[in-house]
Amino acid sequence: MQNKILKFSDGICFLSSGSAVGRCEFEGPVGDCFDIHDKSDRFGMKTWEKAESEMQRLALNVAMSKRGLSERDIDVMFAGDLLNQCVGSSYGLLDFDIPYFGLYGACSTAVEGIMLSAMMASAGYFGCCAAVTSSHNSSAERQYRTPIEYGGQRPPTAQWTVTGSGAFIIGSGDGVRISEALAGIVVEKGIKDANNMGAAMAPAAADTLLRYFEISGRSPDSFDMILTGDLGAEGSSILCELMYASGCDIARRHNDCGMIIYDRKRQDMHSGGSGCGCSAVILASYIIPKLYRGELSDILAVGTGAMMSPASIQQGEAIPAIGHLVRLEKPHI
Amino acid sequence: MQNKILKFSDGICFLSSGSAVGRCEFEGPVGDCFDIHDKSDRFGMKTWEKAESEMQRLALNVAMSKRGLSERDIDVMFAGDLLNQCVGSSYGLLDFDIPYFGLYGACSTAVEGIMLSAMMASAGYFGCCAAVTSSHNSSAERQYRTPIEYGGQRPPTAQWTVTGSGAFIIGSGDGVRISEALAGIVVEKGIKDANNMGAAMAPAAADTLLRYFEISGRSPDSFDMILTGDLGAEGSSILCELMYASGCDIARRHNDCGMIIYDRKRQDMHSGGSGCGCSAVILASYIIPKLYRGELSDILAVGTGAMMSPASIQQGEAIPAIGHLVRLEKPHI
Repeated sequence: MQNKILKFSDGICFLSSGSAVGRCEFEGPVGDCFDIHDKSDRFGMKTWEKAESEMQRLALNVAMSKRGLSERDIDVMFAGDLLNQCVGSSYGLLDFDIPYFGLYGACSTAVEGIMLSAMMASAGYFGCCAAVTSSHNSSAERQYRTPIEYGGQRPPTAQWTVTGSGAFIIGSGDGVRISEALAGIVVEKGIKDANNMGAAMAPAAADTLLRYFEISGRSPDSFDMILTGDLGAEGSSILCELMYASGCDIARRHNDCGMIIYDRKRQDMHSGGSGCGCSAVILASYIIPKLYRGELSDILAVGTGAMMSPASIQQGEAIPAIGHLVRLEKPHI
Repeated sequence: MQNKILKFSDGICFLSSGSAVGRCEFEGPVGDCFDIHDKSDRFGMKTWEKAESEMQRLALNVAMSKRGLSERDIDVMFAGDLLNQCVGSSYGLLDFDIPYFGLYGACSTAVEGIMLSAMMASAGYFGCCAAVTSSHNSSAERQYRTPIEYGGQRPPTAQWTVTGSGAFIIGSGDGVRISEALAGIVVEKGIKDANNMGAAMAPAAADTLLRYFEISGRSPDSFDMILTGDLGAEGSSILCELMYASGCDIARRHNDCGMIIYDRKRQDMHSGGSGCGCSAVILASYIIPKLYRGELSDILAVGTGAMMSPASIQQGEAIPAIGHLVRLEKPHI
């Protein structure tokens, strides 16, 4: 296998990004940064699934509007979500008359879409690419766990699926740069506990980060931040231990979107946020603006996803996971 | 939207392809062309889902072995399937230590993966790419419809989900060429009948084909075959009508993988085959060899997918669909 860090043309950047979130996210510690919110989590729709689709539509619309773009300016979309058959995306983006590539990377979908978009733009296939993803706490509970009325108890390692959609518009320009990427490899280390996604995903993130540092020759301190998508408190702790055991200390630089998005004490989110929407909205509305303003200069962002299903868990399988990496840098001055 | 036909470097081709199928496919009119079959549909596994994963592993293994390749030679994989959270792929390909991009294009996944692989190879990101997909009649029945024991009656327009996996290895060489591609746009024309996927998908295939002919200036007769993935008899008939009504007569050139794979009279498959595995195994083991031998010279292949879910149907939504197109040509002499 050719272990290669992909490098993109100078100028490949986020032309824009946008987000839509629900109540818990708006009430969280960075709630003011999101573009659109609805405290009812319904976005005017009759079902949670339609609400999730509506969030995608709104997130992409707001991303376009910030840059004065219309759908005619966008050449391709990459999208996916956690709903079965990714219907959050296929229905949410149906109104846009834009070529569409469906993705499934679980909670890594945002970074997967960003990576593919950057690859396409840098190679000249599509000048302007959109990457969109979402999750919704209520649609995820219905599909993955139990009806909320069931009152199932969540253990401390459980995470809270973010109600949110993030959209990214990527092309050549003067925005926050996407300079490098490294595709993840699916890793499975025998974790079977569907209430501990962090433990399942941490080895996949470690695999990608270790490969990145080995190939590039860089160290964690080369970066302002090493950001993971949604390992949560438990998974983040495990990741730092795994990295340290391999001679790579990331603890000083590490942060996690699932830990940024909620106030774990005030909001009772147990191990933190998760879901495709977690990394999507935090990248779109918190991290990218920080890079744009120069508050961050150079970061690695690893989108992490757990690639199992309720059926595979029921059949006794362990949880495979993946971590896709992109390097993001502030704009050239 | 930039309506652009993607053109690939000369030499971007199928280095190899492989397939694994079940009983109905092996007993069909082209049954002898497939590489591996198991008449029990179990492939040695205890569940249908694990059998589907095993088919993917076997299909990729046989594709590699035909060319003397090992996993170290493959730089990236694109994979997806119809199971919730695409676990057929994530578990099936887990043993391969290769970077992985998860896709969801429903039954269009094979062509979506082929297209992305060709794009990556042509741009130089990854020298050797694998695209893998699958479906399994029993895992699909369990998830999408009903337990077989329920004895639900299938109407004439219903299709039979193929038990099969196809794998494609794509890079630079002297095999069957992938010369062009056109990404699909999600199209929805109000069809709500989940037992008539052909009617839902035909407009999406028509949209892509009409765009292709308009941009390229070519006509259907420029090609030996215009092949769709799994419209089946009903969808194929509708497609030809839609195209004819738009001034484009494809009837003489049209064929469909779902109609090739089964003998509809002998095998009672109603409208024909469907599922991600349908186009995958027919392309891998029937069409690509015909191109390789020169029995076909220049074809368009449109992978068609219906992007709904049982939940979206239950919520009264219509069925969106997509058609991704690749142009395949015999090797240079």
